[in-house]
Amino acid sequence: MSQTQEPDGYAGDPVFELHRGGKMEIASTVALDGRDALSMAYTPGVARVCEAIAAEPRLVDDYTWVSHTVAVVTDGTAVLGLGDIGPKAAMPVMEGKAVLFKQFGGVDAVPICLDTTDADEIVETVARLAPSFGGINLEDISAPRCFEIEQRLKERLDIPVFHDDQHGTAVVALAALENALRITGRLPESTRVVISGAGAAGVAVTRILLAAGVTDLAVTDRRGVLHSGRGDLTPVKQSLARDTADLTGRTGQLADVMAGADVYIGVSGGTVPEEVVALMADEAIIFGLANPHPEVHPDVAHRHARVVATGRSDFPNQINNVLAFPGIFRGAFDVRATAITEGMKLAAANALADLVGDDVSEEYVVPSPFDPRVAPAVSAAVADAARGDGVARA
Amino acid sequence: MSQTQEPDGYAGDPVFELHRGGKMEIASTVALDGRDALSMAYTPGVARVCEAIAAEPRLVDDYTWVSHTVAVVTDGTAVLGLGDIGPKAAMPVMEGKAVLFKQFGGVDAVPICLDTTDADEIVETVARLAPSFGGINLEDISAPRCFEIEQRLKERLDIPVFHDDQHGTAVVALAALENALRITGRLPESTRVVISGAGAAGVAVTRILLAAGVTDLAVTDRRGVLHSGRGDLTPVKQSLARDTADLTGRTGQLADVMAGADVYIGVSGGTVPEEVVALMADEAIIFGLANPHPEVHPDVAHRHARVVATGRSDFPNQINNVLAFPGIFRGAFDVRATAITEGMKLAAANALADLVGDDVSEEYVVPSPFDPRVAPAVSAAVADAARGDGVARA
Repeated sequence: MSQTQEPDGYAGDPVFELHRGGKMEIASTVALDGRDALSMAYTPGVARVCEAIAAEPRLVDDYTWVSHTVAVVTDGTAVLGLGDIGPKAAMPVMEGKAVLFKQFGGVDAVPICLDTTDADEIVETVARLAPSFGGINLEDISAPRCFEIEQRLKERLDIPVFHDDQHGTAVVALAALENALRITGRLPESTRVVISGAGAAGVAVTRILLAAGVTDLAVTDRRGVLHSGRGDLTPVKQSLARDTADLTGRTGQLADVMAGADVYIGVSGGTVPEEVVALMADEAIIFGLANPHPEVHPDVAHRHARVVATGRSDFPNQINNVLAFPGIFRGAFDVRATAITEGMKLAAANALADLVGDDVSEEYVVPSPFDPRVAPAVSAAVADAARGDGVARA
Repeated sequence: MSQTQEPDGYAGDPVFELHRGGKMEIASTVALDGRDALSMAYTPGVARVCEAIAAEPRLVDDYTWVSHTVAVVTDGTAVLGLGDIGPKAAMPVMEGKAVLFKQFGGVDAVPICLDTTDADEIVETVARLAPSFGGINLEDISAPRCFEIEQRLKERLDIPVFHDDQHGTAVVALAALENALRITGRLPESTRVVISGAGAAGVAVTRILLAAGVTDLAVTDRRGVLHSGRGDLTPVKQSLARDTADLTGRTGQLADVMAGADVYIGVSGGTVPEEVVALMADEAIIFGLANPHPEVHPDVAHRHARVVATGRSDFPNQINNVLAFPGIFRGAFDVRATAITEGMKLAAANALADLVGDDVSEEYVVPSPFDPRVAPAVSAAVADAARGDGVARA
């Protein structure tokens, strides 16, 4: 659509050519092929639809695109592993997300990249936009602001609000862990788990594992295990400490809790030295989810573990959010859910784990993103859970 | 996409069925048909595009959809003739607008219906969204807030900001008037014009006629002619008075200025009594633009005027904004204009008038919305004017 500018040094690069002009467009679902159609879809006919919604606001779900449209909202502060690159540079990721929403979930998604990083302003802005959308997918907003922003928007809005970096990752990681525990004959309540990283993903993975019945958890940040004896914890980390290491009395550094641990989940970046990996229990489970450099490279991990997963598409067992978010919003939208509950997230994880079924193996603990059964299974489970949790409106 | 709710009384109504589920969707312009495509369009490949934009922000125009996407922003306070019906009830109109943007201008448009009517909050919200869009089309925001909101956003943003209710109407009205003056052998500088209505459209029509060389203008509101002798004028109306009736000394009520007037343009609603219409000059020109009830019904107007136009599609000479806004944004986007100038609006009006050309007649002073020459002609003229006005970036 746009004119070619002077050569920018990227012309001809296949990745850049794929992105030229963006990756998405608006399409009409009605044909405006003459005055009659125009007078129904626009003035004067549209006025009757407006009046009907003004009289009965829930009709906006039936007669507009709102009920199947999600805003993908970022402030550009934690984009991929690139950090705070700002709203414009975040746009290619948000468009990619929107394309995935459509392709895998049939969900219409609009990228909204905000020119503010102030939590109050983000909350106010999203709340003011909310009538235009059926749900809010927060994306690549740095911790700890992301926790507060999500919580305040959930309290304020009656539509699903979902921070994908937290909950998408958590859902898929739990699904993979459930199957890894099956392979290694473990039960959640007797499995020792170490999570390195107490950012968005680390907090959410910890919370979903607790909800799934894991009781022996230690979370580490750069200064070691989160426990209440430390004086440097943020409120979010204090809360995590109380529900994890405080219950077992574990303290110290990563190496201290890795000794004898059954499961390591890395959501921190950085690298775990092989001598520390070697301290884990037999038949260990290692998920190194940092991209593109897992905390434990699969070649190293396989020397010490039975089940290995990463965030990368070029190794088996890819923990990829795309397995979760399209089906979760599809399911929430199908029943016009007013929120995405903990039960809906657990249901999504269980549905993903169940899809693997009896084909489960060390190299197959989660489905492929291209498995066509994924989004239908996740959305059906999420819709059922929404009904069970009393948040479904249809 | 959405489930059917209980019958709502509108099922089966053709207008409502046309609107069911909304009128638009997101479409991908890239095929994600396997891991390779996914790794180019999303992680890890997309990271390189993000980094390039972070280093050189203008590349957002080349490698995202931003440069061809407009936000259609409303607060739902002045929707069609329905008034303040709120953001949700405004959505069908905004979707219709988006569909027209795409169909006629190839412009991608996203409806943004805001849950605030506070001018400061609207300005702040739109400014924060702005990195996501290549332009802002303000829509159905009531006067006088619309003037301040547009002005502040124009000052703050380096992308086109355009209040269609003002400028779209003004551009098409000017085009129609130019051809009506041709038919009746008048020149702008010796034509007496009355504009009834000093809201969004009235102000903009007045301003563009002044820019086009009309010198004898009287604008009326419910209390009569705007002139500086009145003590009840808002700042916007004071400014209009100084540039119109103050120059000719006209005062009084509508009937006083209609006596001998060459042109009447109604953008006020209400009805002008036939005995007032009868006071106009010979070969009068009457545009009654209120929808669906023109200020002067065409049957009445034709008894006293040579050229008659309305906003309705079921009479000749429809003054319809759709003739303007798709081509104006298309032209602005084609040259990556940083603003929409007065020169670009005049160019759009002239292009519309010129399309009629030698086929001009009493019943054909503006092209049909379905004339395929319209958007290309308008966009080319607007792009040229943007270059001439120094606001083109490409």
